[in-house]
Amino acid sequence: MDNNVTAILLIHCPDKKGIIAEVTNYINNNNGNIVYLDQYVDQNNNQFFMRIEWELENFNIVREEIAANIKNSIAQRFNMHWELYFSDIKPRMAIFVSKLSHCLFDILSRHNTGEWNIEIPLIISNHDEMRSVSEKFGIPYYHIPITKESKTEAEKKELELLKEHNIDFIVLARYMQIISEDLINNYTNKIINIHHSFLPAFPGAKPYHSAYERGVKIIGATSHYVTSDLDAGPIIEQDVVRVTHHDAVKDLIRKGRDIEKMVLARAIRQHFRRKVLSFNNRTVVFA
Amino acid sequence: MDNNVTAILLIHCPDKKGIIAEVTNYINNNNGNIVYLDQYVDQNNNQFFMRIEWELENFNIVREEIAANIKNSIAQRFNMHWELYFSDIKPRMAIFVSKLSHCLFDILSRHNTGEWNIEIPLIISNHDEMRSVSEKFGIPYYHIPITKESKTEAEKKELELLKEHNIDFIVLARYMQIISEDLINNYTNKIINIHHSFLPAFPGAKPYHSAYERGVKIIGATSHYVTSDLDAGPIIEQDVVRVTHHDAVKDLIRKGRDIEKMVLARAIRQHFRRKVLSFNNRTVVFA
Amino acid sequence: MDNNVTAILLIHCPDKKGIIAEVTNYINNNNGNIVYLDQYVDQNNNQFFMRIEWELENFNIVREEIAANIKNSIAQRFNMHWELYFSDIKPRMAIFVSKLSHCLFDILSRHNTGEWNIEIPLIISNHDEMRSVSEKFGIPYYHIPITKESKTEAEKKELELLKEHNIDFIVLARYMQIISEDLINNYTNKIINIHHSFLPAFPGAKPYHSAYERGVKIIGATSHYVTSDLDAGPIIEQDVVRVTHHDAVKDLIRKGRDIEKMVLARAIRQHFRRKVLSFNNRTVVFA
Amino acid sequence: MDNNVTAILLIHCPDKKGIIAEVTNYINNNNGNIVYLDQYVDQNNNQFFMRIEWELENFNIVREEIAANIKNSIAQRFNMHWELYFSDIKPRMAIFVSKLSHCLFDILSRHNTGEWNIEIPLIISNHDEMRSVSEKFGIPYYHIPITKESKTEAEKKELELLKEHNIDFIVLARYMQIISEDLINNYTNKIINIHHSFLPAFPGAKPYHSAYERGVKIIGATSHYVTSDLDAGPIIEQDVVRVTHHDAVKDLIRKGRDIEKMVLARAIRQHFRRKVLSFNNRTVVFA
Repeated sequence: MDNNVTAILLIHCPDKKGIIAEVTNYINNNNGNIVYLDQYVDQNNNQFFMRIEWELENFNIVREEIAANIKNSIAQRFNMHWELYFSDIKPRMAIFVSKLSHCLFDILSRHNTGEWNIEIPLIISNHDEMRSVSEKFGIPYYHIPITKESKTEAEKKELELLKEHNIDFIVLARYMQIISEDLINNYTNKIINIHHSFLPAFPGAKPYHSAYERGVKIIGATSHYVTSDLDAGPIIEQDVVRVTHHDAVKDLIRKGRDIEKMVLARAIRQHFRRKVLSFNNRTVVFA
Repeated sequence: MDNNVTAILLIHCPDKKGIIAEVTNYINNNNGNIVYLDQYVDQNNNQFFMRIEWELENFNIVREEIAANIKNSIAQRFNMHWELYFSDIKPRMAIFVSKLSHCLFDILSRHNTGEWNIEIPLIISNHDEMRSVSEKFGIPYYHIPITKESKTEAEKKELELLKEHNIDFIVLARYMQIISEDLINNYTNKIINIHHSFLPAFPGAKPYHSAYERGVKIIGATSHYVTSDLDAGPIIEQDVVRVTHHDAVKDLIRKGRDIEKMVLARAIRQHFRRKVLSFNNRTVVFA
Repeated sequence: MDNNVTAILLIHCPDKKGIIAEVTNYINNNNGNIVYLDQYVDQNNNQFFMRIEWELENFNIVREEIAANIKNSIAQRFNMHWELYFSDIKPRMAIFVSKLSHCLFDILSRHNTGEWNIEIPLIISNHDEMRSVSEKFGIPYYHIPITKESKTEAEKKELELLKEHNIDFIVLARYMQIISEDLINNYTNKIINIHHSFLPAFPGAKPYHSAYERGVKIIGATSHYVTSDLDAGPIIEQDVVRVTHHDAVKDLIRKGRDIEKMVLARAIRQHFRRKVLSFNNRTVVFA
Repeated sequence: MDNNVTAILLIHCPDKKGIIAEVTNYINNNNGNIVYLDQYVDQNNNQFFMRIEWELENFNIVREEIAANIKNSIAQRFNMHWELYFSDIKPRMAIFVSKLSHCLFDILSRHNTGEWNIEIPLIISNHDEMRSVSEKFGIPYYHIPITKESKTEAEKKELELLKEHNIDFIVLARYMQIISEDLINNYTNKIINIHHSFLPAFPGAKPYHSAYERGVKIIGATSHYVTSDLDAGPIIEQDVVRVTHHDAVKDLIRKGRDIEKMVLARAIRQHFRRKVLSFNNRTVVFA
């Protein structure tokens, strides 16, 4: 089963009678075997979302021509936003990290074990602390310090590295720098952040301190796409853990670390498996 | 939106290329507006499952002929098991209860508030204790005592009542009697039980006592369809709650009550909204 | 065991070496059998919190003199805030409700079943809708309409009713009115609200609409003591439930109802069992 | 605060009036500053459990004599089982692992980051696969193959290694071998296993396959002390995760890995912080 290369088509367009039939007919008529279909209609906004996956084996259209064919056969007619992927091409992920290791260790461990079908060509950091972790796993580590003055220059360097390594998406694994709009625009809905609170509660700095002050009984973590609006991008995944009066700030930080790494890992997985679509600052996460 | 009557079609058949296209084409070609579609392929068993819902307004086939038309147009060809429902016909639910009120209160409160689009024509009990609760909500209460000797006779009476009231499905809201095969066979996959443990742990009697003895750190509840195999039918919904060494058996019972009523309520809702299909003692619960 | 009347002492004071020994010695030396002890030191603020419970049987000090004796023997020396309760005196709870029935039904069902060892002498509402629910359970219902102009007068009437019925604490079971400072001051840390969001996210009106707009993947409910700062009082209990892109606002409201009633019920229980102490806008909830 | 060395006393004995006062008096009278106290009375079995921790600074009894002093002053009188630890002595943990890396990576990452105040002198495996992971973190790896024939000999070697390295407790991080009674008896309540199911559901081999077959809607993991009764020792920690019909066995295995590593990590932490006492095959886990 895993040997069969599949095409993955993500669709998003105004809702209209007959889209599902058209798309499934298109694949069937070209002799494609559909192995996955999930769709969703946002009735408030009259928007249609779909993820469909079919085997390339026996498919009548050769791989190189599928995109053009989809465009002409169905996409233009329904005014579709669409993305096409092939299952044998591994997404290439860059990690940005500052000084905390828990998310980085978790990501690299999964990668090392082969749990994730992706490439991690490089790690970028504004500090040097995480070099030793990166080296354990043999991933190239680029230390690009950032000061107010050097920020523009530094991000230019980062962007060059990302382009040079053909990076598809970026994971901010507790990266304590605000990403500039220019970099964001190069990777729209392709930069995944983990914020250490249950957003929209406690955005910005020191959320665990704020959570302690407020006396909440549950803390959380939120993984979202980065937009120019800080901690306000489309949410991919969230989770929570109970705390009590026994938990001091350092306990919230400790408990939070475990939630952060799990939430981030789940968001990454959904992203690289092409399960996430964004619209109106909300995400559709297919089954 | 809620004014529009819809048809709901549940399908289950061997998987085959083209089913989705055929079914959606069928509805589109007859001018039906699809408002819901979810499907699932069990690749281990090569089985296809689908729930599709469309508006009757403007649909070319008159309501009375839809079933026959589906049969001839698509069902036979794909060897489908299928069920057809209309959204303006309220499912009729009977409640069986013994002496504990928490699930009963929860169900009747939801019904009273209009949360659930169902009818509850009657409550049947082997005891008289829950009569006062039933009367608060104006639901007819039938006390049918059961002894070893009277069991067959009692269930015959129950079945008559169920038929007389055109009952579609039965909820065992902490009903402490084993249902006989004959009654089960009259309501296959239509009797919903709540068991007060996280099945398959602690089937049978006194699960909270067993959970206490075993020293578990989490207890649960399970709602499932009743089969002739005790506490072993297809699971619809489960949930859990944490316990600690501070919790004595009476605390497990108390915490468990809250989980039981929530799990049962969710299972009932999924059932009457026609979201559940069973196959091989497992359920598909559509989104 | 439940036959034995107990005294419950709640203590809160600056931390100091020897408090636990002093308090337990005091009870032991007077021949009291301790059946519960939980304590907590807030090391940030150097505050000590304790809940201790002992059987009155064989206790050397007669019930009427215990309070005075505690004051002289230990409380003054340690500069304690303290509260003394006896387990055979049922707390008297008033319910305030507006138009939504789910919390009210849940509370009255628990009361009806005898799950809670409290009295509910009255229900107060600014609307007449919940009268029928109250009457099902035989609880007197007072309809006190509130307009901007009548608010002061209305709250005066409410306060009279509360005093007349010797109410110990108030539960706002989805009561859609802001309580004035005067009423709050009469019941400091004795008015329990349920807010339909995971505070501090989405305070104020229409939290489910805001949650939908923000695209969160989890929603919650928060029970807290009412202070003059809206939705900002000490949190007693919170819980959450997952949502997906499939959930429209009406689904958030529906899922939220179940969380609201559970969170409120747990907060009420902790309160009337004298398990909650507040300090610095945070709560200590004893085991 | 963390600079102050503390003594930790774990007590377990028949319940009796005055124990708490005696113990706290003992520490106070010797000028010890209590920084932690939690206690629990199992009223069913009339057993008292306590964990108390105090600063050695200014304590009147010199460190070397505390144990003897406790024995004579309080332990014998109350017939106590008791354990005494000092916070500056790091527990020494051995890891046993077979071929799966997720728990091992998680443990070694935490250790590497300094999250856990323990020593890990060695890793023992019946296979060679995990050597590369161990080497990344610089922990000595002992490959001791086990066959039916070599088992006794192999465990003898293991025991020698454990003794030689002064191992305090053992963690089975997905170690797929049954531990013999002799080794268990050397480490009573000191061997922590992670079982990949929500015990007592699905003990033994292939729990995820069984969970899939049974069609459960939630899967779990259980960390427990190893006893000679397979998968039946005292449970320290459990947790669960939701699954749906979309999850094939391989998805249960994947979701389960994340729960396993979290549950095991929490159990290890509670153990080495001296928070766990066992009695009657149940655990008391202090706050």
